[in-house]
Formats: sequence, structure tokens, C-alpha cells
Amino acid sequence: MQFQLTKDFLQQVEELISKKDGKGLKTLLHNLHFADIAEILEDLKPDDATYLIKLLESDITSEALMEVDEDVREKILEKLSPKEIAKEIEEMDTDDAADVVAELDEHIQKEVIKKIEDKDHVEDIVELLNYPEDSAGSFMAKELVKVKDTWTVAGCVREMRRQAKNVTRVHSVYVVDKEGKLLGRLSLKDLLTADEKAKIKDIYIPKVDYVTVYTDIEEVARIMQKYDLGAIPVVDENGVLVGRITIDDIVDYIKEEAEKDYQLAAGITDDVEADDTIWELMRARLPWLFLGLLGSLCSVYILKSFGNGGALSAYPQLFFFTPLIAAVAGNVGVQSSAIIVQGLANGTVRGSVIKRLLKEVGLNLVNGLFLGSIVLLFNIFLGYAILVSLSIAISMLAVIIIASLIGTFVPLFLEKKGIDPAIATGPFITTSNDILGVLIFFTIAQLILGF
Amino acid sequence: MQFQLTKDFLQQVEELISKKDGKGLKTLLHNLHFADIAEILEDLKPDDATYLIKLLESDITSEALMEVDEDVREKILEKLSPKEIAKEIEEMDTDDAADVVAELDEHIQKEVIKKIEDKDHVEDIVELLNYPEDSAGSFMAKELVKVKDTWTVAGCVREMRRQAKNVTRVHSVYVVDKEGKLLGRLSLKDLLTADEKAKIKDIYIPKVDYVTVYTDIEEVARIMQKYDLGAIPVVDENGVLVGRITIDDIVDYIKEEAEKDYQLAAGITDDVEADDTIWELMRARLPWLFLGLLGSLCSVYILKSFGNGGALSAYPQLFFFTPLIAAVAGNVGVQSSAIIVQGLANGTVRGSVIKRLLKEVGLNLVNGLFLGSIVLLFNIFLGYAILVSLSIAISMLAVIIIASLIGTFVPLFLEKKGIDPAIATGPFITTSNDILGVLIFFTIAQLILGF
Repeated sequence: MQFQLTKDFLQQVEELISKKDGKGLKTLLHNLHFADIAEILEDLKPDDATYLIKLLESDITSEALMEVDEDVREKILEKLSPKEIAKEIEEMDTDDAADVVAELDEHIQKEVIKKIEDKDHVEDIVELLNYPEDSAGSFMAKELVKVKDTWTVAGCVREMRRQAKNVTRVHSVYVVDKEGKLLGRLSLKDLLTADEKAKIKDIYIPKVDYVTVYTDIEEVARIMQKYDLGAIPVVDENGVLVGRITIDDIVDYIKEEAEKDYQLAAGITDDVEADDTIWELMRARLPWLFLGLLGSLCSVYILKSFGNGGALSAYPQLFFFTPLIAAVAGNVGVQSSAIIVQGLANGTVRGSVIKRLLKEVGLNLVNGLFLGSIVLLFNIFLGYAILVSLSIAISMLAVIIIASLIGTFVPLFLEKKGIDPAIATGPFITTSNDILGVLIFFTIAQLILGF
Repeated sequence: MQFQLTKDFLQQVEELISKKDGKGLKTLLHNLHFADIAEILEDLKPDDATYLIKLLESDITSEALMEVDEDVREKILEKLSPKEIAKEIEEMDTDDAADVVAELDEHIQKEVIKKIEDKDHVEDIVELLNYPEDSAGSFMAKELVKVKDTWTVAGCVREMRRQAKNVTRVHSVYVVDKEGKLLGRLSLKDLLTADEKAKIKDIYIPKVDYVTVYTDIEEVARIMQKYDLGAIPVVDENGVLVGRITIDDIVDYIKEEAEKDYQLAAGITDDVEADDTIWELMRARLPWLFLGLLGSLCSVYILKSFGNGGALSAYPQLFFFTPLIAAVAGNVGVQSSAIIVQGLANGTVRGSVIKRLLKEVGLNLVNGLFLGSIVLLFNIFLGYAILVSLSIAISMLAVIIIASLIGTFVPLFLEKKGIDPAIATGPFITTSNDILGVLIFFTIAQLILGF
């Protein structure tokens, strides 16, 4: 039943655009949801997408524009005049409108704002733009349904009808006092069952979750998830209701954060996608590879020092094990840090750092003993002397334990310093553990074997 | 304004429990949201948590039980009698009730079901239990508000009041025909503005997104996100409305999936948390370390063969570079696979595989040339002969390109075979690239240097 964008359908759209057959396009795309139009826009060439934006009604295109990827939107907006952009923005909810305006170049911003006819809308947009990034204020929309506590149910329903026209979907009805301060919310259930002449103050629910304009969006997401909220009201410093955040925006935020963390763990920054240009992908990937390479060059230097210092001639077999040591150190470090990074994000990592480090040591002691035994057996199978085999197994055990300590400690330390601990997983921890792993391995082997 | 669980508060709760001061506890916890009660339950010892569950009203505890981690819930339920479990389940929505029943041991399941007094509730639970895992049917709740198209607005409001009593939150009002088939939905806005005597069939919106009981939950999540839905109706094979899925459950699902993917990339399975027992953490982590070790043992064997085959005496410096080669291969492979895994999850990876592989080659050729130049300079700085330095840089370039091809190809291949491509990132790709990296490095060096 849902729309599926097929190759054929896209080709049909492209043909109609090349023929400038506006009527045909309107018939073909009639009845499609704006999210489907967005899918089509993403697959069209920028010129074709712009043609479609100009052709279709702006109540549809304004919503579709918000659904497409930022890169795509940017390319389309570049081809529109300030007046055409203003027309799209007039149709948007304030939160979307503010996002789009923020994406524009500064000189175009001013032009566009001048062309927006609804001055209240402009005022709202400018207000939202002034809140700090990642604050509830910068995420909220001004559109909401609010009623005064002194009204009657009948008056309230009348007023709700009027306000509802400007609100895409009524999530909740908020109750405010005569200064606009948030008092509580109105359940639709109660509104349905109450007497028409009853006063709102007698039926509203005074307990309502809210956040302030300066609450961090991460905290907003946590609260909305914890209490299963569909929308949350936002108040200013004086408790005056100024906006609301809906769960669909929070869903997008959660997904984006999860993707960012996943990419960071893989050594990719800048929120790229498989379909971005080679240049964008390179910019997101090369710095991490470069960082990793610098680390690896350190380990080359360490190996050279040990090698030329006598290890190479006395115990050449140690050099067959260096990739193994680096890999084990990397794998253990990534596991330890991933658990902590995720625990910090979920708020489940609380309490003593020492206890947590001890737990990691205990766990990795068991894991290390198991893996060490296998390495020992493998060495004996390769026919190496028992002392060499033992020293390899023991130093690997030491590497495992130290790698797990670093993997646990680094994200906790970063979190304390106010740095996103997610950067600790991935190439950063792999590389530092590579270097330390090789260093510890040879140091311990040297102590045991004495080269 | 939100509740913050402090150490002091928890201590207070624990003291009251140890004194069996039920009245004091009720006063202290009065007015707390069930999600807050859940936080407290998670931090209490199982016996204390069970005491609290038995003490508090089951309309609160049933909801709190659904918010706690599965391990915690399991431990509490073990200490409750079938009758006590049945009392909790009676208060739950059908979707939650079915989840809890599914978690119980088989012989307790039957006992508990027998003790549930509301037989309609039992019937609903059993129905949900019969849908395949990860289908919309197994995720939906039976609670919803539906009206018939032949009713008047006044009759509809009357009926809605009655049904709303059983539904925690009215997300949407669905319209069905006399056989119960889904026809459309009713907007509260329209209901507010319509004439009392108007027929539902004249005001309802016939266009409604829906899924069937067998739709995969991943697809349900995609649709609800794409169309920004707060709830979606679920129909059976005949189009009869049988349930609905709400966005809060989808938010939980999205978060869990993201966490699972993140953990898989870090070499952790089984959905563990930092606070799980050492044994649980070990079970989730050791298999991956073991797999990685087996791979690394292969690379040890390869290095030994090349080493004893003459490389060690002729060009010992090659062996200082093996951790670098393994690290670069691992980092590039993880980057390539992460981009593809995420693209597959988002549906942005479409079209030709060949084109995608060529793009990766192009990108990594540029990255590789840059990194290769640095390695070349570093070698010259170390005082190595130009031919050796060149052969190291060139074989690293080859390793980078092949690692990127493997990183791109493996997840695409797994997806095609119906295996979750997320397992391709992390230890799996790092390990296979480690082995191949070392093998390619020495093979190419051998070709150039001829040892």
C-alpha cells in the first residue's frame, strides 16, 4: 500500500520534466505524500528537482524540502530566488523554517527574511535562531494549542478549533495562566467527558513534564523516551510557555546521534553517506587514517629500536607476533571503550571508577588466560622453546589487561573533561593500543628473555 | 523539575524496606512516575524490589516492570507467585502483557494464564504470542479506539469516551466498516468542528497508512519515521483492524537496533550493558576475541613462512612494518564497511555494485597515495634504501585498495545472502584484513625485492 519509488516511475518523472509537462507531472504526483515527493527529489538532478519544487504547491514542497538530505536541499535552494525560498518558508512550521534559514548564506538570509510576508512568522524564526545550538529552544516549534485556565470547556473547544488550523497535528493541549505561564495540560479524554460549562481550571492536569529553552536536547530526548512522551512543552526563564518539541524530531535526533557514534567508532567524521562525493568521503575518512598512520609509524620506530637492539638476531620469532599483539590490544580496547561509551550515553554508568576498572581487569584476566593458553599451545606446535613461548603468552596477557584499562579509562576521562567520549572508540583507541601493545610486549619479553 | 534518583533517596527507600515500613514507602514514592519507580527498582536488590512490587498499586508497578531491564524483571518475576504475576499482567496493555508472558518459563506461563481473570485479555495475549518474532503482529497492542463509519458524530463521541477508558493514550481514532475492516481515520480536528448529527462516513479521512500483522518491524519503523506517524494501525490478511503500534515502542526498537549494531562493530554480542555480570560480559566478548586470535595466528604463520623463507635475513626491516600494514588494512576496511552497513540500513545504497566498488577504489587510491608518500618519507628518514622504501609504500597502497574492496563487498554480499551485514564491521573485517594485509604486503615486497 505504501508508495515504492521504482526506476520506471522515476524515468517517467524525468521524461515529463524534460518535456516541461507540468500538467502531466501534477497528475502523476497527485496524492503522493510529501515524504514520497522527497524521495523523488533526492534521486533527481538538481535542475529537475528545482523544476518540480517550482511546479508543485508549496504546502507539499515545503514539507518535502525538510525531508530531503541537507546537501540536496542546499543544491535546490541555490537555484531558487529569495522570493521563492520565502514562499516555501511561509508554509513551514517555525522549527523547520528556522533550520532552513540557518542553512542559507548570510546575505541571502537577509533577502529571504525581507520577502516573508507574515511578520509574526519572521519574529518566531528569529527568536529560534537566537537560541544556542543543541538547546531545546533551537529545536522547538512555536506552533501549539494552548488554552487559559479561566476559560470554560465550550470556549476552550472554540478556541482550540481556531488554533488547530495553524498546527499540523494536535499532540497536546497546554493550559496557561493569564501571563502565559505553563500550568498543566488538558487530556482530550477529559475534554470529551466534561460538562460544556465547566471551567478549565477544574479539569486540567497540573502535573506536566516540561523543559526550558536552555535544556540540552540530549536531556530532552532522555526525558521524552523515559516518560514515553509524544510532545513536551518548552518554557522560558519565567515559566512562560514558548514552544513544544514533538517526538518525530526526537526520533530523527536519536537516529542521527546513533549514526554519528557508529561512524566515529569506524573512524569517519562529518556525517557522510555512501552516496556523497568522493571529496566529501575523503575529508571524513583521511584524517583518521592519517592519525592511525602516525601512531603506526611510532610502533615501527619502537620495533626498529628493539630489533636493532638485539631482539631481531636473538629472538626473530617475536617479530612474527607483532600484528597479533596489535590486533588483540585493539580488539580488547574497542570492546572495553564501546561498553563504557554506550553506558555513559544511557546513563547506566554510575558509581565508582575504581570498581569499574577492577571489573574490567577481572574479566580480561579470564579472557587473557584463555587466549594466552591458545597462543602457548600454538607456539609449542610451531616448535618454539618453552621459555620463548611462555614469554609471548605472558606479555600478551599483560597487553590485554592494559588495553582494557585504557579502553575503560579514556572515555570516562573524556566525559569528565566535557569531550564526547564516542571519539574514544575506533581508530583513536586502536592506534594508541597498537603502540602501547608493541611496547609492552617487547619490554616484558626483554625482561623474561634478557636480550 | 524531573525526578533525579539520588544516593540519599535510594538509601531512604532501602531503610524503609528493611523496616518493612509500607506506609512510609507509599508516602515517599507517592506521585512518582512509573518510569521513576523503574529506576529505583533497577538499583535495589531483587528481594527489596520484589517487596516494593508487592506493596505498590499494580497500575503503577505493571508499568514500572515494563520499563526495567529484562534481567531485572526476570529476577523479580521469579520471586512472585503466578497469582501475583497475573495481577500485574491484568493491568498491562496487551503488547506488554504478551512480552512478559513470553519471557516466563513454559510451566509458569500456563499457571499465570490460568490466574488471569479477564478472559478477553488472555485471548488477546495468546493471539499476540502466535505472531512470528519481529512481525508487526508481535509488536502491536490490541488497545485502540475505533468507530464505525455508519455512526453519527455524537454517537462516536459517546463510544470514544467508553473505549478511551481502556486506552492509556488516544493516538488516533480509526474508522472501520461493519465487518471491522479498516476504512480510514478520524482527525480530532474534524471531530471538533463537525456537526453532531453528521455521519462519520462523511467526515473521515480515507487515506491512512497501515501495515499487516506480518509486516517486518524494521519496515514498520521505516514507514513510521518516513511519514512522521505517532501510531500506525495493523490489519490482518482480510484487512480487519486488529491492533496498533505506537511510536514510543518504535523509539525503543530503533535505539536497541542502533546499540546492537554499535556493539557488533566493537565485537560484542548478546546486548550486554556495563552493569551486567562478568560472566555475561565474557560470553558476549570472548568469542570475538577468540575469532580475532585465530585470524592473527594465521598471520603469525604467514610471517613465519616468509621470515624463514629468506625475508628475515635479507630485509628484516619489513618485519617492523607488519603492525602498520595490519592497522591500515583494518582501519580502511572498517571505514568502507561502516559506510555500506549504514547505507544498507537507511536504504540509501541502491544501484550498481561495480560502480560502488570503483568509487571506493578511486577514493582509496587518493588516500593511499597520500599515506604512501608519508611512509616513503619516513623510510628515507630512517635511512632505508630507496628500493626497500618504495616497495613498502607500494605494497601498503595495494593493501589499502584491497582492504577497501573487501570492506565494501562483504556487507553487500551478506545482505544479499540475508545475513545481517552489521556483523561485517568490527573484528570480522579487521581480522580478515589483518591476514590478507600481511600476505599481500610480503607477496608484493617479494616480487619487487626478490628474496
